[in-house]
Amino acid sequence: MSVPTLLVLAADPPPRLGRLTGRAQVVTVDERSLADRLPYADVLLVWDFTSDAVREAWPGEGPRPRWVHTPSAGVDRLLCPELVASDTVLTNARGVFEEPIAEYVAGLVLAMAKDLPGTLELQRQRRWRHREGMRLAGSRATVVGAGPIGRAVAGTLTALGVTTAVVGRTARPGVHGAEDLDPLLARADWVVCAAPLTDATRGMFDARRFGLMQPSARFVNVGRGPLVVEEDLVAALSKRWIAGAALDVFSDEPLAPGSELWDVPGLIVSPHMSGDTVGWRDRLGEQFVELYERWLAGKPLLNVVDKERGYVPMHD
Amino acid sequence: MSVPTLLVLAADPPPRLGRLTGRAQVVTVDERSLADRLPYADVLLVWDFTSDAVREAWPGEGPRPRWVHTPSAGVDRLLCPELVASDTVLTNARGVFEEPIAEYVAGLVLAMAKDLPGTLELQRQRRWRHREGMRLAGSRATVVGAGPIGRAVAGTLTALGVTTAVVGRTARPGVHGAEDLDPLLARADWVVCAAPLTDATRGMFDARRFGLMQPSARFVNVGRGPLVVEEDLVAALSKRWIAGAALDVFSDEPLAPGSELWDVPGLIVSPHMSGDTVGWRDRLGEQFVELYERWLAGKPLLNVVDKERGYVPMHD
Repeated sequence: MSVPTLLVLAADPPPRLGRLTGRAQVVTVDERSLADRLPYADVLLVWDFTSDAVREAWPGEGPRPRWVHTPSAGVDRLLCPELVASDTVLTNARGVFEEPIAEYVAGLVLAMAKDLPGTLELQRQRRWRHREGMRLAGSRATVVGAGPIGRAVAGTLTALGVTTAVVGRTARPGVHGAEDLDPLLARADWVVCAAPLTDATRGMFDARRFGLMQPSARFVNVGRGPLVVEEDLVAALSKRWIAGAALDVFSDEPLAPGSELWDVPGLIVSPHMSGDTVGWRDRLGEQFVELYERWLAGKPLLNVVDKERGYVPMHD
Repeated sequence: MSVPTLLVLAADPPPRLGRLTGRAQVVTVDERSLADRLPYADVLLVWDFTSDAVREAWPGEGPRPRWVHTPSAGVDRLLCPELVASDTVLTNARGVFEEPIAEYVAGLVLAMAKDLPGTLELQRQRRWRHREGMRLAGSRATVVGAGPIGRAVAGTLTALGVTTAVVGRTARPGVHGAEDLDPLLARADWVVCAAPLTDATRGMFDARRFGLMQPSARFVNVGRGPLVVEEDLVAALSKRWIAGAALDVFSDEPLAPGSELWDVPGLIVSPHMSGDTVGWRDRLGEQFVELYERWLAGKPLLNVVDKERGYVPMHD
């Protein structure tokens, strides 16, 4: 067998690929040359996982990579009908982002419970103003998204004493089905969105759903921006339908300096960083190398995406 | 037995005392009239627990209350040699503040791990700048103070995956003695001060101890302000001996608008609110009523302070 061609969509070379020397013919491409190179690649590593180029460049018929890996949890930027219909295997970075995101969500939730944004603003103004926080233990969270990220978020909130319900597409042990979503939103102090972006979930957090929530509820999105109808969230906050929100993801990233989202009262804006902790690129590189070695050895790949559903199914 | 006189040091009447109607002769006093009234009181409730008036007004000899209750965890503002030497029983609010403070500390620690202050500042500037957080799980904390607050903080940090050591005055199961303090400071990512303020602990966090800490370490004080030599903390932050700090308590409270502490880079300032969650005054009122009923029934009081040591000893 000749050395496979590993096409890497990346501006800067990923770490750890040196370990594949002699076992992969690494070709680094940018978005513009991707379409020309794709038919000659055995494997595609979408290192620049925020790019939409793969969906646009994917060949309809004819030669194409047998395996595509994205070092991200979501695969929404990659999926096009031709890729879904093909026999190309798609894998993701399951295992890398779950626990960091769970910590990030816990940090946001505690910051809102204890009004840390208010504290920092008062500090800027050199004003001593005592306020009362709320207890996190005993409050209720509804986590939307029953994949590994949603479950990790639920685990961390549960460890902090929060009564947490997880909602997925279909009911199974420990997971509520979509039919329970609305009543669970209506009684939550915290609504955390960690769902995959699919045709079924796009825009799911809209005026109707924000209207179901309690006036004291806070909403956190660490999934994908288009899960939320952003103007409906802004309206819900300004009308006090809900008490606060934190967005780490947006329909357009990076968020433009002129976006109205930057200064909505009660809204925390962060730059899509919830899963990214020191060393994350190394871990993603290591994970790809391990998968590549499995693939080369003819072993079944891990983290295989169900392309019809748009995520890696859970088997437990 | 005649109805006991319950002296209440308070600007506003405490909640729940109505339940003692007929069983207590409630007399509310302010700081100025406290000294005149103290000799005629059976019980003193120091509802305004931030007042120093009790220490100043306490009668040297002669009649005095048999029981003093403070609805706070710390008793440092009350203790004077005459009160320590007397047979007056002193009780505190053990049980009310522990878990709220533990949540507050977890919120500060997560906020620093994920650079939430930086995120909020960038949001104010409408700037999208991705950063990497640090994992909380796997980091190390040293909690100074082995009372119920220190233990609650340790429990919450442990639940978040932090390897946590608790340091008290003397070693016992689960608690390091003071002889382990310096080496435990030297290896901690997080140093949390939840110690009582006594002659032995005043000023314990000074230049020498900040100098022992790692340059990446962060320091949190939720105990009492004078546990920290504030100018030494400012110097340690400005010289980058440590990476950050959060103070909820200060030598002088409220912190003056002109204090240099308001705008030290890397320092979060909050207005002594870590333990105060919605309903806390009700809970403090209820706790006092329950203690009063025990006292009236001749049962042993709970939360009895060891006045020599300056805190309620742990018995487990």
